[in-house]
Amino acid sequence: MTRKDLFEQIQSKKSYLCVGLDTDINKIPKHLLDKEDPIFEFNKAIIDATKDYAVAYKPNIAFYEALGASGWNSLQKTLEYIPENTFTISDAKRGDIGNTSSLYARAFFENMNFDSVTVAPYMGEDSVKPFLEFKNKWVILLGVTSNQGSFDFQHLRIKDKNRSLFEEVIIKSQEWGTSDQLMFVVGATRADLLEKVRKAAPDHFLLVPGVGAQGGSLEDVSKYGMNDHCGLLVNSSRGIIYSSNGEDFAEKAKEAAKTLQMEMSEYLDKYLG
Amino acid sequence: MTRKDLFEQIQSKKSYLCVGLDTDINKIPKHLLDKEDPIFEFNKAIIDATKDYAVAYKPNIAFYEALGASGWNSLQKTLEYIPENTFTISDAKRGDIGNTSSLYARAFFENMNFDSVTVAPYMGEDSVKPFLEFKNKWVILLGVTSNQGSFDFQHLRIKDKNRSLFEEVIIKSQEWGTSDQLMFVVGATRADLLEKVRKAAPDHFLLVPGVGAQGGSLEDVSKYGMNDHCGLLVNSSRGIIYSSNGEDFAEKAKEAAKTLQMEMSEYLDKYLG
Repeated sequence: MTRKDLFEQIQSKKSYLCVGLDTDINKIPKHLLDKEDPIFEFNKAIIDATKDYAVAYKPNIAFYEALGASGWNSLQKTLEYIPENTFTISDAKRGDIGNTSSLYARAFFENMNFDSVTVAPYMGEDSVKPFLEFKNKWVILLGVTSNQGSFDFQHLRIKDKNRSLFEEVIIKSQEWGTSDQLMFVVGATRADLLEKVRKAAPDHFLLVPGVGAQGGSLEDVSKYGMNDHCGLLVNSSRGIIYSSNGEDFAEKAKEAAKTLQMEMSEYLDKYLG
Repeated sequence: MTRKDLFEQIQSKKSYLCVGLDTDINKIPKHLLDKEDPIFEFNKAIIDATKDYAVAYKPNIAFYEALGASGWNSLQKTLEYIPENTFTISDAKRGDIGNTSSLYARAFFENMNFDSVTVAPYMGEDSVKPFLEFKNKWVILLGVTSNQGSFDFQHLRIKDKNRSLFEEVIIKSQEWGTSDQLMFVVGATRADLLEKVRKAAPDHFLLVPGVGAQGGSLEDVSKYGMNDHCGLLVNSSRGIIYSSNGEDFAEKAKEAAKTLQMEMSEYLDKYLG
């Protein structure tokens, strides 16, 4: 999917909501466990319920990998079920040296046809480049994350450069790919961080995972993160998909998604630069 | 596997060789392609041929993941075929926030019973800790890698600390786990790097992937990297498993593994501190 297509979706749905399909067999409603593929049944119902409000879906691959071969089947079926015009993110946080990264890229972009994959930056350019060789596919590089451990390395100051490691990652990686193929993961816990990231990458889309269960204000994210083509995908996982664990789980997920979408619609009017 | 068990294996086989099972369907001998599971058949023959000379096997997960569900089956069968007293490494380079890392840990340590998994450090302590909660299982944290891209971030100097990012990773992470549960990946291209790593982590095992096809001298690695319980696992992948792509591939792999083992036996006599 191109950046233009993505922005068109955002304008048409008045939403920059990404629904995180972190589907845990231990957390889905009990009545689904009788089905042949409970994970897929759950995802299918969530997608049906939220597709008018979400522009992107993001399965976290760990949840599927933990189930072995059957998990990969559920993932594949889920991916095929997501409507064509919706952006898909393989939240895999992969990264390895060149020829191995090429294999990961083929797994997610060719075998599975995801639009994008999250990638870890530690191994540098030749671990990221193989993902950038696919037309209209995206790398979403870890920039700054919202967990406590982000302070261990991401916020360290770099000697002789007036910036932190995460800023260096965001600036350096722009030599490898354009804003038509590269986004950044930015944990949305602090407005000042978003301002720094926007300064370092004015044009790029940011995937913000920290709204909802992980904290972070949607208004702050929108105010400090939005650019002239929105430039934001804001993810909510547990806050939507586990709104209820009864028979009404899809209905409740729809309400939660709609509530976020309505708030986003307001911010698009207010902050779209 | 405990550190004591691993050192006993090293002493008994006079080897610290790890064989990298980077098994690529496009590179294995053509006569195997008629078999029901060519990847497993290849691995089985390689394991049979090298098990007297290797103390560890390291499948790179990308090669299996690229094949989808069938790849995971080949991987599972391979893992079960590796002799009990041999150390197994899931070269997955995973890393995510807490509850998601727990899922990856369960996938590799419980569902698949690997002894260890390689983990990327960028997200910090809470991305690594869940892997350290399993008894007699190991995290092998990316320290410094041998690829060109390692210079993008790993070698950056940290402000107000007289060290590079990779040294900071190696020092900081020792607060999270002991040398009985934590190793480091150290790309073996330069002796001075190994000296720095050994200074930062005198007791830990190092997994050295850079000997053979990736360059790096086994003597230098041994001289500068060995400690009083060896503390080294030196990997060779292509140099062993693709020694021949004819019917004699296993025999040639055996010769290549034996050659490395004999050299290692010499260095164990010479450098074991």
